[in-house]
Amino acid sequence: MAKINKNYLNLGNNYLFREIEEKVQKFNIKNPNKKLINLGIGDVTLPICDQILKSAVESIKEMGKTETFKGYGPNLGYEFLREKIKENYFKSGINININEIFVSDGAKCDISNILDIFSKENTCLIPDPVYPVYSDTNIMIGNEIIYMDANEENNFLPKPNSKTADLIYICSPNNPTGAVYTKEMLQEWVDFANLNKSIIFFDAAYESFISCENLPHSIFEIPGSKTCAIEFKSFSKSAGFTGIRCGYTVVPKDLIIENVSLNKLWNRRHSTKFNGVSYITQKMAEAIFTEEGQIQCQKNINYYKENAKIIANSLKSVEMKFFGGYHAPYVWFKCPKNMYSWEFFDYLLKNLNIIGTPGSGFGKNGEKYMRFSSFGRREYVLEASEKIKNL
Amino acid sequence: MAKINKNYLNLGNNYLFREIEEKVQKFNIKNPNKKLINLGIGDVTLPICDQILKSAVESIKEMGKTETFKGYGPNLGYEFLREKIKENYFKSGINININEIFVSDGAKCDISNILDIFSKENTCLIPDPVYPVYSDTNIMIGNEIIYMDANEENNFLPKPNSKTADLIYICSPNNPTGAVYTKEMLQEWVDFANLNKSIIFFDAAYESFISCENLPHSIFEIPGSKTCAIEFKSFSKSAGFTGIRCGYTVVPKDLIIENVSLNKLWNRRHSTKFNGVSYITQKMAEAIFTEEGQIQCQKNINYYKENAKIIANSLKSVEMKFFGGYHAPYVWFKCPKNMYSWEFFDYLLKNLNIIGTPGSGFGKNGEKYMRFSSFGRREYVLEASEKIKNL
Repeated sequence: MAKINKNYLNLGNNYLFREIEEKVQKFNIKNPNKKLINLGIGDVTLPICDQILKSAVESIKEMGKTETFKGYGPNLGYEFLREKIKENYFKSGINININEIFVSDGAKCDISNILDIFSKENTCLIPDPVYPVYSDTNIMIGNEIIYMDANEENNFLPKPNSKTADLIYICSPNNPTGAVYTKEMLQEWVDFANLNKSIIFFDAAYESFISCENLPHSIFEIPGSKTCAIEFKSFSKSAGFTGIRCGYTVVPKDLIIENVSLNKLWNRRHSTKFNGVSYITQKMAEAIFTEEGQIQCQKNINYYKENAKIIANSLKSVEMKFFGGYHAPYVWFKCPKNMYSWEFFDYLLKNLNIIGTPGSGFGKNGEKYMRFSSFGRREYVLEASEKIKNL
Repeated sequence: MAKINKNYLNLGNNYLFREIEEKVQKFNIKNPNKKLINLGIGDVTLPICDQILKSAVESIKEMGKTETFKGYGPNLGYEFLREKIKENYFKSGINININEIFVSDGAKCDISNILDIFSKENTCLIPDPVYPVYSDTNIMIGNEIIYMDANEENNFLPKPNSKTADLIYICSPNNPTGAVYTKEMLQEWVDFANLNKSIIFFDAAYESFISCENLPHSIFEIPGSKTCAIEFKSFSKSAGFTGIRCGYTVVPKDLIIENVSLNKLWNRRHSTKFNGVSYITQKMAEAIFTEEGQIQCQKNINYYKENAKIIANSLKSVEMKFFGGYHAPYVWFKCPKNMYSWEFFDYLLKNLNIIGTPGSGFGKNGEKYMRFSSFGRREYVLEASEKIKNL
């Protein structure tokens, strides 16, 4: 008799965004004439840049001719793309070998699947609040989770404390709080991990939103990180690839646990359970790294950053304390009048016709907070900001 | 201290196709002027059909405009594609609900990841010889494996026997042997699975190569299958998508184990650890199901089938016994002179300058067999066939 993985029964029944969707649907049915502005969405809205589209069309032409057709690609990803990723790291003074880079269909998949190569006896240290995928994927395999509090006291940037942990999740710039670790603070984590032989999973999905030169874009800017960290990167937010699906993971060759190379293990996992990313997608990703591609993508990022500033300023104007918004596409703030997250969600929906993301959906420390996203269209962001001023 | 998944250390060191590549490289260095013909490759070589390319270019245009840009897609895949898949099943008299269809980036990923939703205490029944991914992914999680012998005695189509098993892998048409189960034989498996509350993983990646009307293209043609089977399908071989990456998995709603819906579990897995397939890819897949798309894809399949026939005939002409080749892109045959697989591989390489795939790479019952693939270009297949006649 086949037996199911019972850990799945320990997962929460509802996924945050599905719950929001249901509430919005109900509201729309009751109020068919009310126009809603969505500041809850974590998805980009600007179209793909011309340079990337051009490359896509070229690659499609190649797929249509016998001489240039591409079947299965190399397991780790095409070298043309991995070379570009390597060069990009090199510009920041980081030396990465192309065999340390694994191209995939997105950071979400990799940061979930990475657990495959680890024992189920590891204890995981996960910040709270946080992107729900970290905890869900650990619950799915029955790993022990220790949550670390991220709150106003520590500026939503928890430091290592005496609790030892085997696998440590760090997301900087953070989703949902927008908080960013400094180099000094990341150094503390790297030292802690090396001392305890822990592994850091560094989620850098939002690094392109960092505005200040001194803040680290990569864990590999930190001395000692190559013996303790795996980095997850994504083109989803940096190039609008949420619907295209491409990211990459860097597993340094110096990462040795119990005398085994994690790079080799991940290579085995990647080549056995995955079959590479579409050639078209990889050619599109390559175009991001061209001069013109960089300029066009940066223009889009600046657009979202300006949105974040507008949202942040509107909260400032009504003297509401907020976090994030400068180095991240998310603005995180305390609900007014001591309201609970879902309570304020309902209030916003009903009175201002704005959709936010309830902070409690990201963990217990998110309760009484709300997340606004800057990925909307400017006209709606401006309209929402005017409304926020009436809070 | 982080601990690794030690099951990975039980995996074979070398992957079959890497071993072949290394041998070929060595040969090329020693014999720079010898032209090799590759009948070992499991990858398609014909370019993507016009109808599909047209759809790709259209979808890229959409991604370049604000009004039509697509970000994150629906977790299960776009309805336009799932509707087409549903309709296609319906043409064969099979009723599938669109919420039973999960679009993914390929059957290899799904047939690997499906194990996530099952307990690690299941015993797996895997044919030998077989696609190495089935056993590798089970070894990775430490599942107990029972191999079932596929050999000339049973026409490489093992039947259920008294051994109970919780998870059963069936690949029909088979890789590497080309053997195809009849409806009656599949019925035996379905009855066995329902009786023992086992789950069948039915890999139908090569169903488009079936030439005879009476042979089943899908496990769901078999009464009772919806309470015991999951089907994995791929556009890799049917539409030349090995470099595009798209497939789908059907998990019937009637599939209930320990009072839990496997459809719900897989939905949770799919939406948590995966983020959908590129919109462009899904639009390309949709085009496969247009009238013109079907005609063009079928033309390519016929080309490969004709190749298989040419290879089969050349083996026939030297009175070598072979299997497959009619309903599958693979021709499977016993090495001459009682040679071992790798011995014959070396012989073919050195004397005929042909690359084959050693049967032993697919399991112990593959020893002394060889697999030829029909995915090459016609001119090479013809040239190889002439050479084979001198065996």
